[in-house]
Amino acid sequence: MTVLLLRPRSGAGAAERLARSAAAAEGAGIATADVPGWLAARRRARPSRVRRIPFAELDGWSFADGTGDLRHRSGRFFSVEGLHVVRPNADWQQPIINQPEIGILGILAKEFDGTLHFLMQAKMEPGNPNLVQLSPTVQATRSNYTKAHGGARVKYLEYFLDRDRDRVLTDVLQSEHGAWFYHKRNRNMIVEVDGDVPADDDFRWLTLGQLGALLHRDNLVNMDARTVLASAPMTHPERRALSSDTDLLSWFTGERARHDVHARRMPLNQVADWIRDAHSIYRADQRFFRVVAVAVEGAAREVSSWTQPLFEPVGPGVVGFAYRVFGGVPHVLVHARVEGGFLDTAELGPTVQYVPANYVRLPSAHRPPFLDLMLDAPPDRIRYAAVHSEEGGRFLNAESRYLIVETDEAATPAEAPPGYHWITPGQLNWLAGHSHYVNVQARTLLAVLNTHAVRL
Amino acid sequence: MTVLLLRPRSGAGAAERLARSAAAAEGAGIATADVPGWLAARRRARPSRVRRIPFAELDGWSFADGTGDLRHRSGRFFSVEGLHVVRPNADWQQPIINQPEIGILGILAKEFDGTLHFLMQAKMEPGNPNLVQLSPTVQATRSNYTKAHGGARVKYLEYFLDRDRDRVLTDVLQSEHGAWFYHKRNRNMIVEVDGDVPADDDFRWLTLGQLGALLHRDNLVNMDARTVLASAPMTHPERRALSSDTDLLSWFTGERARHDVHARRMPLNQVADWIRDAHSIYRADQRFFRVVAVAVEGAAREVSSWTQPLFEPVGPGVVGFAYRVFGGVPHVLVHARVEGGFLDTAELGPTVQYVPANYVRLPSAHRPPFLDLMLDAPPDRIRYAAVHSEEGGRFLNAESRYLIVETDEAATPAEAPPGYHWITPGQLNWLAGHSHYVNVQARTLLAVLNTHAVRL
Repeated sequence: MTVLLLRPRSGAGAAERLARSAAAAEGAGIATADVPGWLAARRRARPSRVRRIPFAELDGWSFADGTGDLRHRSGRFFSVEGLHVVRPNADWQQPIINQPEIGILGILAKEFDGTLHFLMQAKMEPGNPNLVQLSPTVQATRSNYTKAHGGARVKYLEYFLDRDRDRVLTDVLQSEHGAWFYHKRNRNMIVEVDGDVPADDDFRWLTLGQLGALLHRDNLVNMDARTVLASAPMTHPERRALSSDTDLLSWFTGERARHDVHARRMPLNQVADWIRDAHSIYRADQRFFRVVAVAVEGAAREVSSWTQPLFEPVGPGVVGFAYRVFGGVPHVLVHARVEGGFLDTAELGPTVQYVPANYVRLPSAHRPPFLDLMLDAPPDRIRYAAVHSEEGGRFLNAESRYLIVETDEAATPAEAPPGYHWITPGQLNWLAGHSHYVNVQARTLLAVLNTHAVRL
Repeated sequence: MTVLLLRPRSGAGAAERLARSAAAAEGAGIATADVPGWLAARRRARPSRVRRIPFAELDGWSFADGTGDLRHRSGRFFSVEGLHVVRPNADWQQPIINQPEIGILGILAKEFDGTLHFLMQAKMEPGNPNLVQLSPTVQATRSNYTKAHGGARVKYLEYFLDRDRDRVLTDVLQSEHGAWFYHKRNRNMIVEVDGDVPADDDFRWLTLGQLGALLHRDNLVNMDARTVLASAPMTHPERRALSSDTDLLSWFTGERARHDVHARRMPLNQVADWIRDAHSIYRADQRFFRVVAVAVEGAAREVSSWTQPLFEPVGPGVVGFAYRVFGGVPHVLVHARVEGGFLDTAELGPTVQYVPANYVRLPSAHRPPFLDLMLDAPPDRIRYAAVHSEEGGRFLNAESRYLIVETDEAATPAEAPPGYHWITPGQLNWLAGHSHYVNVQARTLLAVLNTHAVRL
């Protein structure tokens, strides 16, 4: 007869241990100040080069007969197809990345001297402006780990696939960029281990506090690391808020219910308003993004050279939370955003998430709400600012300035406009524990809060 | 300057008040024993008749040129289209109901003598075997309340659309039958009011305890009422379980990640293996369901007579939870079910959810797991059994025997097989507070637990 041990439903201990790690400015491994140099050294150790190529030089990738979709001959990795989005007051077509498989973004955690440390990797991605950034322990598409590349195995992957003896701190499917991906989700995992973990030159153990300090640097912590850190079950102390949790969910349910969004995939060569030439696919008015191709050489990756398409935004983005304190409790202003590629209609995004270059010609009344509040924020109201880039495996130089800006009643009233809602960092973290609630840009800002890069 | 009042994030009071209502065997209104007679009287007060008609006699509905999709000329209500589902080891096509708009299933709550009561409606639906059942206060598609019917207004709807002065107890989008609906969700709401609510002959106030008693009767509490009751934020007392909440989510995330499901709508007239004649659309081997048409006359509804298509299963279903007590804590065995029409791959269903007639010719080794455990359960192990029908506005005589059966280690080991997991009623209720987790059949069984129809 098996003896069954019941477990507490909520592991209260985890949140306290994560908070202790966030309070640890230094850890048992590399010093925070040495991380940028270490990343630069890893980059020098295996110099790699990314150059733009015409589509005709792509190896294994081609535009399919009939549809014009851009696909790999293996049928794997991802494809660039068309998307037709119809809303009550808008109707557009665009290229979209279709990558139906669910990948793993996993960070290994382990206690050293009683404090949780996280195993971070120096990883090259061709779309990163500086190529090598700090990434999760494992960042693997299913093609990666089932060896579609024919390349080397993914290090440490076994901790995330076979977890019988290990402790899971978080494991949730999170969406990625709904403007560029069709229904894309990845599995965001933090798994704690007790035993020895073999060391590797490309990996270092860091506390959450160290990661928070590094989040103040431009282009250092990659998107995949940020989204996993956002999914960590932290303790945010507030017990009171402008809305109860139930009222917050009710508001969000209403937002989902009121938006009609019909998105259908379509052949890439039938997408209206987009033009394909030898080097790129772009909108006739040059807005939003381009589809381009690159060749990568000398990379320290599963395979050392390859070619691939990337999406390249037409300019840098601005992504920010307006932030206010109500009754002593900090709140951020979330926006229920519809993005054509979301699996479920709308998710909570930051107050502002735009590429200003797309709106330069618009009169101020038609500019996106709150955008100028972020662009013109006085320095003493900026509680956080850093440039981060989006997933460098799919996006080329997709940099945004991420901000948390303290605002006031005149600019951002307590009674939020339709589509916006004031919520606490704890409420945002609670929702990020489930799928379909918090978009990837808001999760970068949540990672900033979770790691105590800023204490509101 | 506005004075802002912060609210507690969790309204602990609501759960206790719901528990008190569940403990109230009788309420301030109609006696429980009088409800069946009252429903029969409401049925007699406005006698209605449902008869099968050939498709050619449908008024306003027709098979579209080209696709053969069955649509209403207004473009509203719903349509019957085709669905092509591709999985690694299965590939099938079938008719599916496409109804992209989100409806409201809302129950109004109010305290009488300090106990919460719920305003339930005697409502006729053409597909119900007994036509009139107990339904939520409001059960409205968006076509209903935007008057696509050209009919009367939906009573009490204003409490759910304009809720400024009222208290929301729950408000969550829940999926419906993934085998018959494409991406269908409805808004499940319970809204509490303080003021006087005008009475109406078709409505009665009942406690949760009364609703629990009525759930022991066959075909009395309709599906829409059951799913709303499942979404109520109850207190289930257990603090410990076989899996922590985090491990439960991790198991479910793994289930979602491992299932490849590609479902695409297709023209109804190209669906393979299905035959259309003058009266029905059916599978050549007579399994699963038929699409049929009915005429309704004399109904006490927004409009008094109409015609419409309905889906009719080929036989009654069996839906049940296996139930065991581990370490003093009750657990039910959930199944991560893939249904082709789910928006997100898999949801948690009951241990068993099958129409046995579909499997009669299969050798026992190929019969669905645990089905015989439900069919052959000895009476002393059956903790709950009643026949309920699915949504009578879309499904004709879709009856299932719902069961909760106590099992043992030999039949249902503590180490659940792949795709199954033991969870507590509290964990099930917690997940039903969010979208995409608990399917509509499991929610009927959760309503049984929430209303204390059975105390495990």
